[in-house]
Amino acid sequence: MTSILELETPVVLVDLDKVEANLKNAQDAADKAGIKLRPHIKTHKLPRFAKRQVELGAVGITVQKLGEAEVMADAGLSDLLLTFNIIGAKKRARLKALHDRVTIRVVADSAETVAGLAETFVDAGKPLSVFVECDTGMGRCGVQSGQAALEMAKKIVAAPGLKFAGLMTYPAAGKYKEAQQWLADAKALFLGAGVSLPEITTGGTPDIWHMSEAGVATEYRPGTYIYMDRSQVVAGAATFEQCALTVLATVVSRPTEGRAIIDAGTKTLTSDLLGMQGHGYVVDFPDAKIVGLSEEHGTLDVSACAVKPKIGDVIRIIPNHCCPVSNLFDTVTLVRGDEVLETVPVAARGRVD
Amino acid sequence: MTSILELETPVVLVDLDKVEANLKNAQDAADKAGIKLRPHIKTHKLPRFAKRQVELGAVGITVQKLGEAEVMADAGLSDLLLTFNIIGAKKRARLKALHDRVTIRVVADSAETVAGLAETFVDAGKPLSVFVECDTGMGRCGVQSGQAALEMAKKIVAAPGLKFAGLMTYPAAGKYKEAQQWLADAKALFLGAGVSLPEITTGGTPDIWHMSEAGVATEYRPGTYIYMDRSQVVAGAATFEQCALTVLATVVSRPTEGRAIIDAGTKTLTSDLLGMQGHGYVVDFPDAKIVGLSEEHGTLDVSACAVKPKIGDVIRIIPNHCCPVSNLFDTVTLVRGDEVLETVPVAARGRVD
Repeated sequence: MTSILELETPVVLVDLDKVEANLKNAQDAADKAGIKLRPHIKTHKLPRFAKRQVELGAVGITVQKLGEAEVMADAGLSDLLLTFNIIGAKKRARLKALHDRVTIRVVADSAETVAGLAETFVDAGKPLSVFVECDTGMGRCGVQSGQAALEMAKKIVAAPGLKFAGLMTYPAAGKYKEAQQWLADAKALFLGAGVSLPEITTGGTPDIWHMSEAGVATEYRPGTYIYMDRSQVVAGAATFEQCALTVLATVVSRPTEGRAIIDAGTKTLTSDLLGMQGHGYVVDFPDAKIVGLSEEHGTLDVSACAVKPKIGDVIRIIPNHCCPVSNLFDTVTLVRGDEVLETVPVAARGRVD
Repeated sequence: MTSILELETPVVLVDLDKVEANLKNAQDAADKAGIKLRPHIKTHKLPRFAKRQVELGAVGITVQKLGEAEVMADAGLSDLLLTFNIIGAKKRARLKALHDRVTIRVVADSAETVAGLAETFVDAGKPLSVFVECDTGMGRCGVQSGQAALEMAKKIVAAPGLKFAGLMTYPAAGKYKEAQQWLADAKALFLGAGVSLPEITTGGTPDIWHMSEAGVATEYRPGTYIYMDRSQVVAGAATFEQCALTVLATVVSRPTEGRAIIDAGTKTLTSDLLGMQGHGYVVDFPDAKIVGLSEEHGTLDVSACAVKPKIGDVIRIIPNHCCPVSNLFDTVTLVRGDEVLETVPVAARGRVD
């Protein structure tokens, strides 16, 4: 058995037992709620976990970029939802190539996006399915009202090579009730107008345990739930014990009684704060605070620790936000507890376009 | 000629004319100040630029991790300063392998680091040169006083396989005067104790144009100056026109009159704020504010723009902090103005350990 203490740091550890438990918990909750699960792979970026999600009952996967879709399609995933407005002829050509070999659906929130897709996709015998993206409170992409969604849907219906798939939203964390109301009102409008609404897809790990209250939604797209992280613990969606992704770092300096420096900075943990104080949770020294990061150094205030970390100590950190941590590392190391199993490439890392 | 408008976005552009001008300006300033320049390659992570820095007069390069040193040594760079406490037998073995083939020097700020190095490096005929890292106000690594530096230096001198190289600091931005005073006081102590002090190395792009006031320092290690970024403009060290690294992004959504969404989020721009408001400077729409980022979306407030960006518009952004942007991309595209020259791998990207 190889112990994690034999690894060079910093390194990202992913505990397979915790992954499996997190995946099963969410699939069980979705099954009980009678809602389809379509996990977002942006968190793990690993074909093996995408396949496991599907094996456990997911109807397919969600991706955010064409590059991620290409990696997942190459690995054998066959049902993909790409939740991004695809703009430009080159990107549409890549989408077309994917559409020719797997089931892939996309979103649109503007006449420009729909017109572009309608120009590239012209085969009524094999139409591209398009969701209308709705801004239900997140303040990012999306049409602003049910009426605007209905008008956008009509544009999609009118294009011979496109097919209207339904409504898609990413709700603001903790505002799932507002999002559900928005979607319910929109559904009533569609019914009144006689426009069929095949699917309503929503998402978000912060509200994953409210899937049974998802109202009109037919599908749920959580991402972070596979690993969980400090932000999800703060949101009440997980415990620290359930966090499957940790960063292993080494104490490299103890310049003062109250300060410890580790070999993990923003190149490892990112500078994502997500509204929190500090840059992660130190599992082995819960009274330590990660008060600052530069690229390769993390600064810990250890003045509150009864026993303080020493130079050479190896510590595990639960990051604020696990998804961008996956994107910083070429590989992650799969473990069970303290046992190293395998180091694997993060296949869809850095697929930004 | 290929135009940048033919590239898929998001993509990182590096303007070679601006790089060359930035490198020459700094080398000229160092020459005038009579101080050696040892650029930090963490910003660009590209052997070609490291070589150019040396061609223009740099005495060698600075790296922050062994992995970066290995990439640069493989590419033919032969004089490296690794400004990090090297802890652990595996890392020391890698350092030894580097020491066997190139000139590499390191830092130490603790008895533990020195003892570890002394255990691995035992050949008095080919000693490892070690600087004492000093905390001159940054609050990161480093001994806390000149007296502590002297004691650490004596430990290095006492180890047969180590050689004392001098003092190293990374001063807090804008506090170069305090740092110089700290170093001057330390130098006086060393002189008084009869301990030779071969080099005093300091750094930082924010204060690069104060190199002539570097006092007792003999060497300067700037990193960001090759590309510059919004934080350096705010610090007064550069103009926006001098910024060589830009991110090219596409407007993918215009959900409201005042909001534009681009296809660049934290996976492109990082969430580094460095004390500023907003996530970058939009060259083409200077009145736009990048008010929010998620992983793949950037949210712009365009309400102050007289002419507003349209869906499909391609815009250039100067990021808050260019160094971690380099670390997110497998490749960068070299340009001159709007002309694409070549896309090259970021050779030392992701070398975290």
